[in-house]
Amino acid sequence: MKPISNIDSTVISSRIRLARNLAGFPFPNRICDLTQALEIIRLVHGAASGVRAFNLYYMSEILEGVALSLRDDHLISAELIANKDYGAALIDEGDEEDPEDFCGKVSIMINEEDHLREQLIVKGLNLSRAYQTLSGMDDELSKTLRFAFDGKLGYLTACPTNLGTGLRASVMLFLPGLTRMKKMKSVISEVSRLGHTVRGVYGEGSAAEGYMYQISNEVTLGVDEEYILSEVQKAVLEIVNLESHARRALVSRDKIGVKDACRRALGILTHCERISFAEFIRLISEVKLGAAVGFVKVKDISLLDDLIAAVRPANLSILSDGLSEKERDVLRAQKCRETLQKSAE
Amino acid sequence: MKPISNIDSTVISSRIRLARNLAGFPFPNRICDLTQALEIIRLVHGAASGVRAFNLYYMSEILEGVALSLRDDHLISAELIANKDYGAALIDEGDEEDPEDFCGKVSIMINEEDHLREQLIVKGLNLSRAYQTLSGMDDELSKTLRFAFDGKLGYLTACPTNLGTGLRASVMLFLPGLTRMKKMKSVISEVSRLGHTVRGVYGEGSAAEGYMYQISNEVTLGVDEEYILSEVQKAVLEIVNLESHARRALVSRDKIGVKDACRRALGILTHCERISFAEFIRLISEVKLGAAVGFVKVKDISLLDDLIAAVRPANLSILSDGLSEKERDVLRAQKCRETLQKSAE
Repeated sequence: MKPISNIDSTVISSRIRLARNLAGFPFPNRICDLTQALEIIRLVHGAASGVRAFNLYYMSEILEGVALSLRDDHLISAELIANKDYGAALIDEGDEEDPEDFCGKVSIMINEEDHLREQLIVKGLNLSRAYQTLSGMDDELSKTLRFAFDGKLGYLTACPTNLGTGLRASVMLFLPGLTRMKKMKSVISEVSRLGHTVRGVYGEGSAAEGYMYQISNEVTLGVDEEYILSEVQKAVLEIVNLESHARRALVSRDKIGVKDACRRALGILTHCERISFAEFIRLISEVKLGAAVGFVKVKDISLLDDLIAAVRPANLSILSDGLSEKERDVLRAQKCRETLQKSAE
Repeated sequence: MKPISNIDSTVISSRIRLARNLAGFPFPNRICDLTQALEIIRLVHGAASGVRAFNLYYMSEILEGVALSLRDDHLISAELIANKDYGAALIDEGDEEDPEDFCGKVSIMINEEDHLREQLIVKGLNLSRAYQTLSGMDDELSKTLRFAFDGKLGYLTACPTNLGTGLRASVMLFLPGLTRMKKMKSVISEVSRLGHTVRGVYGEGSAAEGYMYQISNEVTLGVDEEYILSEVQKAVLEIVNLESHARRALVSRDKIGVKDACRRALGILTHCERISFAEFIRLISEVKLGAAVGFVKVKDISLLDDLIAAVRPANLSILSDGLSEKERDVLRAQKCRETLQKSAE
């Protein structure tokens, strides 16, 4: 197995999000009329169906388990779920086996903060490509839908932080080195100085949450899309570099300790008969760190990220409806063993 | 790999010990004269050397590490080590590769509680055979040494509890089922009613100490050797039976929990890069239990007992002199991985 690049072992995924609103309708937070909300859903669904095969989920009807699973996969937000009466989501149920190994999944939230929140998440560092794909769809939609657009300001949005391009480019990062070397505070302040935001994807980005952070552009107005993408990309590459240094420092500070922890984690995950998600995420993060620094051999580090997604409580519940928490722990352990016995040693 | 028998998964080793004293000398606790003590050592060493190849260790000269290692292997006692001026030990340094796979090691403590404490430990449940071997040596010694013997009482000993045969037959047992099902108290009282003693080999026989217990005959006087051996053997077989029931009850109470614990323990022991003896003994006990109930496959359960002996702190120190505790933990982990990757799955 060939060594894993710093980028591959640090960047989990790239996300492009476009905020759009329909001209002639009040912003979702101003809608007091169910008829209007449903009309917006109808219009967006109609336009989108001409572009791709989407499944439509009304938040008033969606099963709780399905909603939580979509949320865990970052396809819809908690805010949309809470917007029970007006909210809906279009989820690209297209071919899982992407011929180009692109693995992206398009979603459109309807009547979340804006009328449309178009989004595409892809594996690895692929902002431009994801933007091209999503922007292509957005162009198609704009042939049918009349977006609220101002010649000077650009796209109009419910919140001024999204005004202009309506573009949010985010990259999900795995930063165990910087976290454990206690460098995240300075990274966050440096990145914020450059006009970006870094935050823990799940809570504080702590070890307990898998050392996962998301970097996003802060500025959407007065700059063009290319600039936003290239600035986020530059910041990501800088963080990848810092993370790589931090990992080396961590290993040189306590090589046996780091190796022991990640090898034990692999031993447990390849042998356990039941495991909670909390313990799983703590251990798989050690294994990922081990893979990044060469103490664990894995065929493809993205398989580990796929495993993380697959064994989240909501996703396991979707797969096997009506499982108790204990039964989920058993199923999770089984998936861990299968995946890791095949792909890691 | 074939299933392990209940006896093989419960009985670790059998030990025969004979207490003897030389006529014409005061008992060790009455000796106030170094010359007498050294004369006894000289006589015993001379006689024993005619029978087997022994190494002689004076407790006044023995290296601390060697003494601790011999003690951990149950070849000498803490009392002998404390008996610094008068004590000595003859250790059979014979062929490690026993052609009959008997694996016994004879030792003679000199000037411990009695002038001679002859002893043989063998693997598994082998009291008669161990007794034959040791008794044969004792017969040889008695041709040269004049043992204190009374026609009515038998062999005379410093403490009346050893009077008569001077025989102590002990069997070391692995009792995780009875311990965890909280049955040890009733087992101990029942065994005591039959005239035997059960005690934890290391402390209380708790999980932390590897669930190891020793059963020994209490009575040495007024019965012959055959009777003692057969009574201890009977009690052992009864305990093996009770332990087997207890293990089944444990597994039927929480199958996934027991399987999870022993599989995780195996995962850690086959992957760790450093491990303390305390953690090791806790985990290897889980693996042994797993092997006994079929959740872990091992080629030969006695390999696990050999591993336990090999990675005790004193034994590791003997192998690699001058190791720090941390270095021992690394060496122990390496031995664990090597042994278990070969012999367990």
